[in-house]
Amino acid sequence: MKLGDIGEFGFIDRIAPLGRVRPEGVIKGIGDDCAVISLSGAEYLLVTTDLLVENVHFILDWAPAEIIGAKALTVNLSDIAACGGVPRDAFISLAIPPHIDLDWLDGLYRGLAGAARASSVNLLGGDTTRSKGHLVINVAVTGLVRPDEVLLRHTAAAGDIIVLTGPTGRSGAGCDFLLRGVGRDDASARSLIRAHLEPRAHLREARIIAESGAASAAIDVSDGLSSDLAHLCKDSGLGAILREENIPLSPDLIRAGIELGKDPLDWVLHGGEDYVLLAAVKPEQLTSLMGTAERHGCTFFPIGEFVTRGGIEMIRADGTRLPITARGWDHFR
Amino acid sequence: MKLGDIGEFGFIDRIAPLGRVRPEGVIKGIGDDCAVISLSGAEYLLVTTDLLVENVHFILDWAPAEIIGAKALTVNLSDIAACGGVPRDAFISLAIPPHIDLDWLDGLYRGLAGAARASSVNLLGGDTTRSKGHLVINVAVTGLVRPDEVLLRHTAAAGDIIVLTGPTGRSGAGCDFLLRGVGRDDASARSLIRAHLEPRAHLREARIIAESGAASAAIDVSDGLSSDLAHLCKDSGLGAILREENIPLSPDLIRAGIELGKDPLDWVLHGGEDYVLLAAVKPEQLTSLMGTAERHGCTFFPIGEFVTRGGIEMIRADGTRLPITARGWDHFR
Repeated sequence: MKLGDIGEFGFIDRIAPLGRVRPEGVIKGIGDDCAVISLSGAEYLLVTTDLLVENVHFILDWAPAEIIGAKALTVNLSDIAACGGVPRDAFISLAIPPHIDLDWLDGLYRGLAGAARASSVNLLGGDTTRSKGHLVINVAVTGLVRPDEVLLRHTAAAGDIIVLTGPTGRSGAGCDFLLRGVGRDDASARSLIRAHLEPRAHLREARIIAESGAASAAIDVSDGLSSDLAHLCKDSGLGAILREENIPLSPDLIRAGIELGKDPLDWVLHGGEDYVLLAAVKPEQLTSLMGTAERHGCTFFPIGEFVTRGGIEMIRADGTRLPITARGWDHFR
Repeated sequence: MKLGDIGEFGFIDRIAPLGRVRPEGVIKGIGDDCAVISLSGAEYLLVTTDLLVENVHFILDWAPAEIIGAKALTVNLSDIAACGGVPRDAFISLAIPPHIDLDWLDGLYRGLAGAARASSVNLLGGDTTRSKGHLVINVAVTGLVRPDEVLLRHTAAAGDIIVLTGPTGRSGAGCDFLLRGVGRDDASARSLIRAHLEPRAHLREARIIAESGAASAAIDVSDGLSSDLAHLCKDSGLGAILREENIPLSPDLIRAGIELGKDPLDWVLHGGEDYVLLAAVKPEQLTSLMGTAERHGCTFFPIGEFVTRGGIEMIRADGTRLPITARGWDHFR
């Protein structure tokens, strides 16, 4: 049997039971944004790790080394944000092929260190080795979160409001511009390309949500809104209704749709790599949370609600209902 | 400038200062077997990570998937042992190329899970992604150690006895048999090959040393005895004297030397991948520590002592002194 037959998430379901050796202290193991561990201290330890492979996750020609380094750390910080935590230390492993020179590596570390400083994270330890083929970057990040503030995937409830901490789709559109090799001279395309290459981890937004007590479930939108909402629905045993009129859609995304001949809603629902957060917010606390976010200079978007059953449906502007199939990223399908 | 000009350890020295963003709580950052972090709990958190690349660190034809999986975890457990700790959780990231099928991956996970169970370690989280070239395995392991029991690299003192928790050189000889494609039909060569493919992390030995209070410095022998002793000397500002007559040399290593036309002492001093521990033991506590080890079924070898200055010298059986140059593994030289 090939991995493609069961897909990335089928494979994760297959291996998860093997790993449970010493259950005490393990709040979440495989299958959330971070592993969540209760040690003897007051806070839970969060651990996340991401393996990035040249020509699969990044293309050297697309961006300078600094930008690739900063993004490699940011996507891990986003997992800490998804659990409501504060990141602490990062561990970088590199497998370096002969075509990478020291100047490029210095640039990569400048990018990593810049992103680390911006979030008060140490770069510690790791491993440096040789590769005969592609450049490989593994980043592991630890973080801390109070037990009463941790955000997980299985704790959403029917009636909770689906809240996004930023718009989705811009990164996916930027990636399409890069794939087609167009748009670099156009300001609005450049801004979408920047959304793809230079995402920001929503750590501040995560802490606003975690401290508010308004949500106990969240996920970061990395595979795509439809996929990540489906993960949250599956783990919480719920369905979801999205309201199209409430989903943010920026004018440059509409222009990009015209230019690239694509329905911009495709990027919004399935694009991926947005690194905004999707949280399940108790309806009675929504107004207060939105106000707190506003005071901190953040804009949150309530785009629908969780329901007791069914898949994901979108109520369109004209009142019709459209079933939404998760078709975000799966590495093996 | 190419990485080969400064080498792996030159590169680590170059990037280490960039990573110090938030010094509080960081007992050791880059440059020990593990990062050592003081959180709010009673114990220090240890974190280590290793990136293993197909055809650089392992060759698929050399061993079944189970054995590759077990070794991938073991080399990380050995870093926890080097710090005197107890491992807790492991995080596995895989980049999987098309030539790897699901059966092979199941075998890899059986090996990982077997090694994890044997050391009461959970396999949690991680990341599974696609590779276009080689298989890549990143393993990150966390562990815990009491602050008064942690073993570091910079705390050896002149007069401390250099103690090995097992013989070195067997893995290097086994690797040479594999590289030359000979020895598989010979029982003694097979035993050396097994030492290379199926190392054991010296976690039990680590705890004997840590609990005894007889040492505060240790390292695991992964790059080679000469290299790892040199790391400990450099970090502690010391030199070292080895006594050839005290260095364990098994009869099958002598036979392998004859068969492969190599001085067996080369493997003993420079072979690498032994995963035994090298500790700096206070001379007045040596006898008691050796006795404790014996009662636990372990044999420790006092092979020399640390001195105030100079490099590493070996006093040969005939009384002559031989300077030893560290020439263990450097991935980029």
